[in-house]
Amino acid sequence: MFNVQVLGISAAVPAMGRGVSAQVVSFNDKNYLIDCGEATQIQLNKFRVKVMKIDAIFISHLHGDHVFGLPGLLSSMSMDGRSNPLYLFAPAALKDVLEFILKQTNSYLSYKLEFIPIEDFPAGEPVFITDNLRVSTIPLLHRIFCRGYKFEEINKKPKFDFYKAKALEIPNQYFHLLKQGNPVTLENGNTIYPEQVLLPADIPRSYAYCSDTAYFPSMIPHIHGCSLLYHEATFGEEHRLRAKETFHSTAKEAAMIAKKAKVKQLILGHFSARYKDLTPLIEEAAAVFPAAEAAEEGKIYSL
Amino acid sequence: MFNVQVLGISAAVPAMGRGVSAQVVSFNDKNYLIDCGEATQIQLNKFRVKVMKIDAIFISHLHGDHVFGLPGLLSSMSMDGRSNPLYLFAPAALKDVLEFILKQTNSYLSYKLEFIPIEDFPAGEPVFITDNLRVSTIPLLHRIFCRGYKFEEINKKPKFDFYKAKALEIPNQYFHLLKQGNPVTLENGNTIYPEQVLLPADIPRSYAYCSDTAYFPSMIPHIHGCSLLYHEATFGEEHRLRAKETFHSTAKEAAMIAKKAKVKQLILGHFSARYKDLTPLIEEAAAVFPAAEAAEEGKIYSL
Repeated sequence: MFNVQVLGISAAVPAMGRGVSAQVVSFNDKNYLIDCGEATQIQLNKFRVKVMKIDAIFISHLHGDHVFGLPGLLSSMSMDGRSNPLYLFAPAALKDVLEFILKQTNSYLSYKLEFIPIEDFPAGEPVFITDNLRVSTIPLLHRIFCRGYKFEEINKKPKFDFYKAKALEIPNQYFHLLKQGNPVTLENGNTIYPEQVLLPADIPRSYAYCSDTAYFPSMIPHIHGCSLLYHEATFGEEHRLRAKETFHSTAKEAAMIAKKAKVKQLILGHFSARYKDLTPLIEEAAAVFPAAEAAEEGKIYSL
Repeated sequence: MFNVQVLGISAAVPAMGRGVSAQVVSFNDKNYLIDCGEATQIQLNKFRVKVMKIDAIFISHLHGDHVFGLPGLLSSMSMDGRSNPLYLFAPAALKDVLEFILKQTNSYLSYKLEFIPIEDFPAGEPVFITDNLRVSTIPLLHRIFCRGYKFEEINKKPKFDFYKAKALEIPNQYFHLLKQGNPVTLENGNTIYPEQVLLPADIPRSYAYCSDTAYFPSMIPHIHGCSLLYHEATFGEEHRLRAKETFHSTAKEAAMIAKKAKVKQLILGHFSARYKDLTPLIEEAAAVFPAAEAAEEGKIYSL
């Protein structure tokens, strides 16, 4: 399983029923939260993601609409009696802020909060690795230090080609050895090598989260070929100057990134509260990159 | 106009669609916010209270479920371009927390935040006075420093008794002098004193907010005769010990306070997330004080 659920698509302020930035990436029964704007815990409840089932949190940058939900979420996990440590990847300054808030509001955590400052890792380097998932940061260009995150499957195994094995008249009892990558010598003296019966592994699936950022082609090598790209589109082209001034992107710029990076699918988010109707932004993006759509809160994107 | 709108009735965590503590008191076209749990700005939007129309904020204590909505609300006011100063009455420690959060999250305010530490005022003393409204603190008993707030009308004028004036054959042109409290001498030489034509002023209306607190009869003189009392009722009597340990009240205890204080009406709130159905709590309270009900989110209580 490799799913992405977007919890909020509004920039800066919750508006018109839209939440601010937060997303859940679910991979093999683990849930990872990216960003945590105000009321993220309420969005998690709404979309039936158990707060206790968040295994790690990844924060892109320290603007309020990406972090103001953290104190409440961390406190709620504690009130629910969490004992598993929680890994929090974020810009270093967040640590002191959180500790100060939690202390001054008498919020003591029932679990260990393991804080990992992402400045310790060069952009593009993995910050978190499991047996089958690698999370690395993506360089972005914003008013303050800001990183995106790429979630990438690893260790995809080559697939065993049953029909080819049968055609080579390999007895069943040798299959598991070949699957594990070992050559086998049959009773007739023939040696079969794994390459003869293995198909190439599937391309690893990957998800890239890129918010907030100005148009920034330097991110392209980091997100090249991703299965799904979430890219901010705070403005439409009519506000291109405003986008530039505030280090945000237009929908068209997001689509240009998606096209150049040859990603499979693009979802847009972080929309300015001035856009009640998102159609013009999506049309603007789809003209450049047809597989573009507005991220929908609560919808599950399967990779 | 003197209205109270409760935005959240859930204790500790937003649960079952219930928000955490926040209320709006509206008095003569001014809006005052009491407490500001996470997502208060979303509740304000939902119940169509304009964020920009909040004139002052009153914070009872520094537990997260009463303050975690502040950074987002203050930032949103700024993004909306607020220029009027905002008065914030709260325990002193909140000032540093807010300043640190706003600085570290690069949230600069477009307006002056006037912070007034409530420790500077003895409990019961007014912290805020206008021509016709006085707000004073109410002593409460909680794990940490905590104060309730009483909003009280002042300067109620005596009412002019038109029928009595007519019976005394006072010509209309003298009415305004009498209304202003002046004696008048009529053409026939008779002197009329204001007391003869004025009825006693209405009893000033008042609202008392008492959350969070253990059962604490010392608050009674401060809330005596209030038109409306909001009192926390985190638990039912079956959890009386738990209530005592955590310095919260049961619904019955809240009703006992209301009865002893001879308030007109009681609304209960700050319910533990364990109570999906609030009926047992309300029945428990109404057995002691019949004019008791569960506060309803969004409902406007007119005093």
